[in-house]
Amino acid sequence: MAGNSFGTIFKLTTFGESHGEAIGGIIDGCPAGLELDFEAIEKEMQRRKPGQSSIVTQRKEADTVQFLSGIFEGKSTGTPIGFVITNANQKSQDYSHIKETYRPSHADFTYDKKYGIRDYRGGGRSSARETACRVAAGAIAKQLLKEIKITAYVSRVGTLSLDKPFAELDISEIEKNPVRTADADMALKMEAFIKEIKKNGDTVGGTISCVIENVPVGLGEPVFDKLHAQLGKAMISINAVKGFEFGSGFAGTRMKGSEHNDLFNEDGSTKTNYSGGVQGGISNGAPIYFNVAFKPVATIMQKQQTINSDGEALEMQGKGRHDPCVVPRAVPIVEAMAALVIADFWLLNKLSKL
Amino acid sequence: MAGNSFGTIFKLTTFGESHGEAIGGIIDGCPAGLELDFEAIEKEMQRRKPGQSSIVTQRKEADTVQFLSGIFEGKSTGTPIGFVITNANQKSQDYSHIKETYRPSHADFTYDKKYGIRDYRGGGRSSARETACRVAAGAIAKQLLKEIKITAYVSRVGTLSLDKPFAELDISEIEKNPVRTADADMALKMEAFIKEIKKNGDTVGGTISCVIENVPVGLGEPVFDKLHAQLGKAMISINAVKGFEFGSGFAGTRMKGSEHNDLFNEDGSTKTNYSGGVQGGISNGAPIYFNVAFKPVATIMQKQQTINSDGEALEMQGKGRHDPCVVPRAVPIVEAMAALVIADFWLLNKLSKL
Amino acid sequence: MAGNSFGTIFKLTTFGESHGEAIGGIIDGCPAGLELDFEAIEKEMQRRKPGQSSIVTQRKEADTVQFLSGIFEGKSTGTPIGFVITNANQKSQDYSHIKETYRPSHADFTYDKKYGIRDYRGGGRSSARETACRVAAGAIAKQLLKEIKITAYVSRVGTLSLDKPFAELDISEIEKNPVRTADADMALKMEAFIKEIKKNGDTVGGTISCVIENVPVGLGEPVFDKLHAQLGKAMISINAVKGFEFGSGFAGTRMKGSEHNDLFNEDGSTKTNYSGGVQGGISNGAPIYFNVAFKPVATIMQKQQTINSDGEALEMQGKGRHDPCVVPRAVPIVEAMAALVIADFWLLNKLSKL
Amino acid sequence: MAGNSFGTIFKLTTFGESHGEAIGGIIDGCPAGLELDFEAIEKEMQRRKPGQSSIVTQRKEADTVQFLSGIFEGKSTGTPIGFVITNANQKSQDYSHIKETYRPSHADFTYDKKYGIRDYRGGGRSSARETACRVAAGAIAKQLLKEIKITAYVSRVGTLSLDKPFAELDISEIEKNPVRTADADMALKMEAFIKEIKKNGDTVGGTISCVIENVPVGLGEPVFDKLHAQLGKAMISINAVKGFEFGSGFAGTRMKGSEHNDLFNEDGSTKTNYSGGVQGGISNGAPIYFNVAFKPVATIMQKQQTINSDGEALEMQGKGRHDPCVVPRAVPIVEAMAALVIADFWLLNKLSKL
Repeated sequence: MAGNSFGTIFKLTTFGESHGEAIGGIIDGCPAGLELDFEAIEKEMQRRKPGQSSIVTQRKEADTVQFLSGIFEGKSTGTPIGFVITNANQKSQDYSHIKETYRPSHADFTYDKKYGIRDYRGGGRSSARETACRVAAGAIAKQLLKEIKITAYVSRVGTLSLDKPFAELDISEIEKNPVRTADADMALKMEAFIKEIKKNGDTVGGTISCVIENVPVGLGEPVFDKLHAQLGKAMISINAVKGFEFGSGFAGTRMKGSEHNDLFNEDGSTKTNYSGGVQGGISNGAPIYFNVAFKPVATIMQKQQTINSDGEALEMQGKGRHDPCVVPRAVPIVEAMAALVIADFWLLNKLSKL
Repeated sequence: MAGNSFGTIFKLTTFGESHGEAIGGIIDGCPAGLELDFEAIEKEMQRRKPGQSSIVTQRKEADTVQFLSGIFEGKSTGTPIGFVITNANQKSQDYSHIKETYRPSHADFTYDKKYGIRDYRGGGRSSARETACRVAAGAIAKQLLKEIKITAYVSRVGTLSLDKPFAELDISEIEKNPVRTADADMALKMEAFIKEIKKNGDTVGGTISCVIENVPVGLGEPVFDKLHAQLGKAMISINAVKGFEFGSGFAGTRMKGSEHNDLFNEDGSTKTNYSGGVQGGISNGAPIYFNVAFKPVATIMQKQQTINSDGEALEMQGKGRHDPCVVPRAVPIVEAMAALVIADFWLLNKLSKL
Repeated sequence: MAGNSFGTIFKLTTFGESHGEAIGGIIDGCPAGLELDFEAIEKEMQRRKPGQSSIVTQRKEADTVQFLSGIFEGKSTGTPIGFVITNANQKSQDYSHIKETYRPSHADFTYDKKYGIRDYRGGGRSSARETACRVAAGAIAKQLLKEIKITAYVSRVGTLSLDKPFAELDISEIEKNPVRTADADMALKMEAFIKEIKKNGDTVGGTISCVIENVPVGLGEPVFDKLHAQLGKAMISINAVKGFEFGSGFAGTRMKGSEHNDLFNEDGSTKTNYSGGVQGGISNGAPIYFNVAFKPVATIMQKQQTINSDGEALEMQGKGRHDPCVVPRAVPIVEAMAALVIADFWLLNKLSKL
Repeated sequence: MAGNSFGTIFKLTTFGESHGEAIGGIIDGCPAGLELDFEAIEKEMQRRKPGQSSIVTQRKEADTVQFLSGIFEGKSTGTPIGFVITNANQKSQDYSHIKETYRPSHADFTYDKKYGIRDYRGGGRSSARETACRVAAGAIAKQLLKEIKITAYVSRVGTLSLDKPFAELDISEIEKNPVRTADADMALKMEAFIKEIKKNGDTVGGTISCVIENVPVGLGEPVFDKLHAQLGKAMISINAVKGFEFGSGFAGTRMKGSEHNDLFNEDGSTKTNYSGGVQGGISNGAPIYFNVAFKPVATIMQKQQTINSDGEALEMQGKGRHDPCVVPRAVPIVEAMAALVIADFWLLNKLSKL
């Protein structure tokens, strides 16, 4: 248990089901004296929000974060920051079609078996709605990290890949297109592709890439809580994620040591950055970069064979308003989880030496 | 801190530097009454040990685990299991060449910056020698899990890929060849390739695949401690790992939902297993499978430019006996970390419902 | 940090200041399938509530717990139980008199120094209002523990001591008198004494005793998380507590081993119970009993010398409605904390042996 | 589980049974760069050691701490400090008399019931031998805390009380007498009393008082990890402890608020210190002081009725060399646990504000 907390010092604990009254969380360990920019928090929430463009789910959720404690006269007080996000349309829908039906590649079956009971209204706790709390907490973590810059973007949708190195990307483009990719042309192609997929009642996967710049040297706590290990866990814990690679990643496994080693410059920086900004589990000051794999959304608007809780076969079809591709809305979630990891290690590292 | 513990209930804490007197650890939370098979533990240690074949490092380490507590008359007693592994050749070498030199793509630089002090005899705490403790603890976890079968094998060395599905592999082959791959022909090719690499004083990366069978339904603690998230962290925390993907992984991101969804059979099993045995962070009873990416070993027997702690450029060359390719010896480490994760979740899951 | 969580498996995290919008918490790790009795929870809240009698503070707080998640169709679902308790009169008062003044024996000074900022509206996070969340969570823990009976009562107010052994007390009397002591005559004396104290604008301390019956053998996790050590921490963490003793306690230190040893009956029970139901940190099946010392409430209705945040001397006097003696309202808090400790160890103990 | 770790950042995990090969532990989270004084560590070990005077157990144990990691060239390196303490006479005794017998007021019965198996050679894990590891780790914590002075002493043996206030005690006397009390006359009386008790084959309890001076303002993490709550847990987790009170303690419960409140001086210090140096769970800079109650040792050299594991009545008598009174040797243990608590909070407090 305790599976609903993340972090050692800067620690987020969340609660809430997709169709309960509210979701929310507690941030414990945010240092006192942080002047909060509530508009910036709101902006992050808007980036994750349903209904923000024609290529994401058209559900309506205000997703306003209401802070209940830990903040006084605009500043963090060092006491736990409690917050809730009301679920707008919690009672409006009819769930009889999924009450006793296990949707393929959803968590209905596993929750039922593990807990013997399941809140069958929507995804319940397994819904990605839960990530709204991560974005809220991550927005505060970002403010704590001031100088550190975290930039995520969509690097692939289905088979459409943005194959440029980070330095050649147009970062300013990311928030200008609904796909959140870092290239205007590719954005149009991806958008068109997602629309096509949606028209067919299908869904598609993709990848998000993330770069973290200006990370001080020294973050990460080996041997188990290595910076990249915790980043990996953070990313893989996001709904629909199937993989994580950082630095040279899977491609790097094909290389030789003589090619892959990052030779030093005299100032301690390195000529290349196959390491992805991490050596021995500790940041080395170079940009940290990684890719996160998202599977296609399981809810499709096509008929599928499935079973109910009595093990009887039946046919079902997705209802309601779902994302044809999850990556555009997952960009702020990736950034939020990265911010939580970095904030925690940034605090911990203040204790590494006398 | 606390970065040297892993697990919630079945919890391993380790200590030790590569060239200190000994490494070791404490396993807290192993239930009482487990009859221990010490030979099986020894066997796992042998699989990780240096010098086991001509394609791995020729260093000499007995790697005998000495248990100091928590075991009485052959059984676990429920009290912490303390153990040490003596470092055989701790004082024999001369480290003056690396005392003030930062080896490229090693952790010398980051440890120095983070802690302001570094045990420069070999890799110190950042050495993969530390993983011997993981293998010892994992061997006990494996015995706790009796019915559950964890099988890892080398699935790629450099560009040589074993591209067969798990069902077509010859599992019995794995321990018969020094590469630990699951195909006799490929084993020969990989072995020859590693020898060639070694002759050139170079190193090469690779991947390890792992399959966990007979996992009961219900393991994993969402939303942050999802089964695959914790597995991912476990793997990425192993030295030299650059990536982790499970189930359909990165390839799955190219698929459509209509292709990717695992449709149910009437007994609750699924027709396909793109999910990799995990749905919503909880095991569904299907085999769990994943791939782990290992970068090429950083120590090469070629001259490289580097710097010292004063930021002065110099040239250095690897000395001593190092692995040209880490994956053959990393197979038991991957299994051990998988066993630690599964054992912990298996215990936790006993508390999930009344 | 992480100072706002309590428990390993059955884990409560709380948030909230006395005069913020709401206080609340998250219970993570409550097993699924627990049928909740909301009336019983409400009843516990009423026992702690201000204004319940003429000898406690006359503040008005509805103290209704609103559950937001983790419960479905009346049962726990295994997911985190989030709850909030609205602060009724959060904006009604004027705090200018304490904004920059440090009240003697309150936490104003220490919070200001530790965090550099303080929510000066009432006690903020240091207010005993926070314990309402403990009572809510403890009420659920009690329901989990069904067979186990936790009974606390006031055993002293100032110098008025209830010096009878537990067996001779009238437990049924406790909830019948406003002091919550276990003897009708003593209740009248204590009530009169508290009224007298109140009339003088003063306050007085006291002790609460607690007995836990029907505890199964085996609860507690040595060597650091011994049952009584964790119970002690739980109690001492309650506002105004200055001491904890269990079993023979401080009096037992005057005894000889030959008097103090609890000799066994043939059924494993003991002839005496100086051990207080715990041997070696593990419950032995006998009743657990302990005393908790509460200091006199710091807010008095008399003029006191004090200083402000500039270190200037000034005179102040308590305003508003405060408790002349905290123990009557602290009885349900002691029980709640005991329930949290026992519930956590009860779950953990399911994992102690194969 | 995880009951064998103590602390959040400066974290001690221990292992070992009284008659196994060795006991030991791992200190994780000690900041790098601490110059270690090994003589000072050894000196603390000597203070706890058996056989140090005629009024303690005459067992022989060298109690030499062997450090295996985390220290390089005399300084902590920031990596985990592993250590072992060999058990000198582990195999020399005959335990057949206690193999199947439950000694009264020992943990034999509860360990057997909880774990279903017990290392019956001596007390096993429940032996106070385990506290040697606490003293070793506490000695390092003390060195980390440089300016902070922790002084414990025996304040009562049976009914012989040292009733002077701390200011009137002769601290320099403590280590000069075998009882470790802070008054030469009382030391003689206590010593004579313990010898008398020993002659009768009996044992006696007592109390230890402890004062911590020069604690910076701000240590402690409310609301659950209050400084005194964690101190209380630390003390109560020591073998044979039955109670803990700090500041005014149980006596303070008899006082009125108007007497008990600590009025401020203009420099923020207080005129009295009934609070015991802690307000709202946070240190206020005044001396922290507390009392710890120890029961009489359970092993007596007199015949007692007891039962065996089959529930059959039998008679037994203590064998071997045991302490007639535990408090003289427990003084360094109290100090060690205090040091662990203060070190952890001292580190955590560095993160309380920006």
